[in-house]
Amino acid sequence: MALIVQKYGGTSVGDPDRIKRVAERVIRTKEGGHRVAVVVSAMAGETNRLVALVQQMAEAPDEREMDVILSTGEQVTIGLLAIALKARGHGAKSFTGSQVRILTDSAFTKARIQKIDDKAIHEALARDEVVVVAGFQGIDEHGNITTLGRGGSDTSAVALAAALGADVCEIYTDVDGVYTTDPNIVPTARKLDRVSYDEMLEMASLGAKVLQTRSVLFAKKYNVPIHVRSSFNESEGTLVTREEDIMEALVVSGVTYNRDEAKITVVGVPDQPGVAAKLFGPITARNIVIDMIVQNVGTDGRTDLTFTVPKTDFKKSLEIVQASAGELKARTVLSDDRIAKVSIIGMGMKNHAGVASRMFELLACEGINIQMISTSEIKVSCVIEDKYTELAVRALHDGFGMGKEAVRVEKLP
Amino acid sequence: MALIVQKYGGTSVGDPDRIKRVAERVIRTKEGGHRVAVVVSAMAGETNRLVALVQQMAEAPDEREMDVILSTGEQVTIGLLAIALKARGHGAKSFTGSQVRILTDSAFTKARIQKIDDKAIHEALARDEVVVVAGFQGIDEHGNITTLGRGGSDTSAVALAAALGADVCEIYTDVDGVYTTDPNIVPTARKLDRVSYDEMLEMASLGAKVLQTRSVLFAKKYNVPIHVRSSFNESEGTLVTREEDIMEALVVSGVTYNRDEAKITVVGVPDQPGVAAKLFGPITARNIVIDMIVQNVGTDGRTDLTFTVPKTDFKKSLEIVQASAGELKARTVLSDDRIAKVSIIGMGMKNHAGVASRMFELLACEGINIQMISTSEIKVSCVIEDKYTELAVRALHDGFGMGKEAVRVEKLP
Repeated sequence: MALIVQKYGGTSVGDPDRIKRVAERVIRTKEGGHRVAVVVSAMAGETNRLVALVQQMAEAPDEREMDVILSTGEQVTIGLLAIALKARGHGAKSFTGSQVRILTDSAFTKARIQKIDDKAIHEALARDEVVVVAGFQGIDEHGNITTLGRGGSDTSAVALAAALGADVCEIYTDVDGVYTTDPNIVPTARKLDRVSYDEMLEMASLGAKVLQTRSVLFAKKYNVPIHVRSSFNESEGTLVTREEDIMEALVVSGVTYNRDEAKITVVGVPDQPGVAAKLFGPITARNIVIDMIVQNVGTDGRTDLTFTVPKTDFKKSLEIVQASAGELKARTVLSDDRIAKVSIIGMGMKNHAGVASRMFELLACEGINIQMISTSEIKVSCVIEDKYTELAVRALHDGFGMGKEAVRVEKLP
Repeated sequence: MALIVQKYGGTSVGDPDRIKRVAERVIRTKEGGHRVAVVVSAMAGETNRLVALVQQMAEAPDEREMDVILSTGEQVTIGLLAIALKARGHGAKSFTGSQVRILTDSAFTKARIQKIDDKAIHEALARDEVVVVAGFQGIDEHGNITTLGRGGSDTSAVALAAALGADVCEIYTDVDGVYTTDPNIVPTARKLDRVSYDEMLEMASLGAKVLQTRSVLFAKKYNVPIHVRSSFNESEGTLVTREEDIMEALVVSGVTYNRDEAKITVVGVPDQPGVAAKLFGPITARNIVIDMIVQNVGTDGRTDLTFTVPKTDFKKSLEIVQASAGELKARTVLSDDRIAKVSIIGMGMKNHAGVASRMFELLACEGINIQMISTSEIKVSCVIEDKYTELAVRALHDGFGMGKEAVRVEKLP
């Protein structure tokens, strides 16, 4: 008998009929001899409806109150699912974040989970009840309602699985699992059976939308296996797990892309200590997240700095940088928002030379110029002109043989 | 500086613009030098939307879970109003029933308030914040969310006013106050300046829809003055208060009517102890509320029993009664669902003879036959054929001079 945490996203609980189907799926799991705790999101569209209401009230709505409002979406779903389970003769009990209690810090709209009280939930499970928990929400030490930010229900589910010592955290979504790349761009994209936490982290932060980064970090920290699968069929999905549990590491297990960033280059800044800090300090102070940073070796005492920021923060960033560049007596500031970042990810890279060069070759063969490069132990990212995105993704996916038989390397001890 | 509890119903907070207007009204009160605690309902239509969702999940939805869902309506409103207040530069803080905490029994969907913890609210008021409390909801001793039943927000407001020792509880609604009768039927209906708790109780239970009976009982018990007024204009409404605070009692202060009941007569039951219990026991056991009961003096050892039940329970009641009547060997069972109850209410009746006879005369003058009569210290009700409802209400309103100068009697010491 396993203890399973299942998480159903907004599409899976999008209307009463879908919630009934979720209830039936939960019951099948329970009848398979398992104890089940379910974490649910708001019904699809509900959070947007609430956000629209809030936006009609004020331009900069108070965030404590915003969380009071947003948390109601999940509260409705837990009630509806518990009703469906009970109507089918199964013991069930819903829990809001406050009832569990899921203790977070007080950073409204983007709170972080600090501690989950597992007592009430273990009691309900011991009574053979299905536990239905509201995702995305918690409560701070003063009793204020908090939310974890968009996609926070994944984190709720993984954190709950960790707190309960669950055997697995199943994340039900509208896709079959984690794919080698976006099947909309590459029809031969394959579903991965297993992927490591680190690969999943890179994929999530590089644009794959299956799992939220924070939930994967949580899962890695507490060693919670995540099973990503579809709520619309019974097929096995992708297991996100420890590297040690993956027999063969793929050299490249995924190709991702991200078109949501823009590039800014500061040309001819003094090549001396403190310049980067002066340039980036005012940007990060405005809560803008800088992604890639590239600095060339300087000549004649000057150097160029290039970095990327989210497109939504592009204009604001450019204004800040132009001011700083003036102070630093930089030669000029260049910018470009028609870029894309394509990345390859794979555990096998650690033990396999030449993967990056192969990537550059494959892009060169298609005549795609590389504007920026950034690497980590298990990924290589290149910034290119955005019109080449699909071409690049297909070339890399085929070039690394991900469509057919993947290139595998035996794991080294 | 007074402490004022204001309650705004679903129509008054029906959309973002109306909530903004409520915020402005609250601010005007605060700028008048008062401390303000606001109790709000769900936005008009919201509770119905949630009930419809619940009904799609199960025929007999679990009531604990129903309350989890229904309570979200008010939770959204408190957040929106607090946002509107803060956006206008005023300190404000929202409270769910659980955050206050409003302790109730565990009778889900119809819970009763047992105790209100006023500590957090007094602290917020001391910080000069407007306190915004979710009506209609509470929490039981086990931390389960409860709701008070339809119209429960009035009760929340009055109970909060009692707990806080507020100077007045203002109930904002879509009418100007309490009228002598339904202005849709009698154009000369007048707004009452003051009405006693007991008169208001009779009016509420006899069909006037301005205030919920339970809230008036609460107000009477804790001596909380209720000011019923419109949220759409600034005019003074009606003060519901102690009899002692009303200088002149009207002989008749209101005419009400109710077309939601049906009549059942059991003819020729044995005139002996226990018969009424045998007849009514099975009905009340099904949670059907019996209103008027009339039993005539028996002849030849038999008597007739007539009573009224809500039309919605008419068929069910009739089936139960027919079974009991058989066992009791009653002669026959008659029924009629085309009836109306018209009532006159007034504190002055206590000290003024002949009010009931005058009522019977006024109905007789219009050729209206009286089918049942029931009286209390401050009201007389008659059941008549429903097609005469408007005619009867107008005749009584005019006959007791309520339209123009009302008949007043000096209060006796």
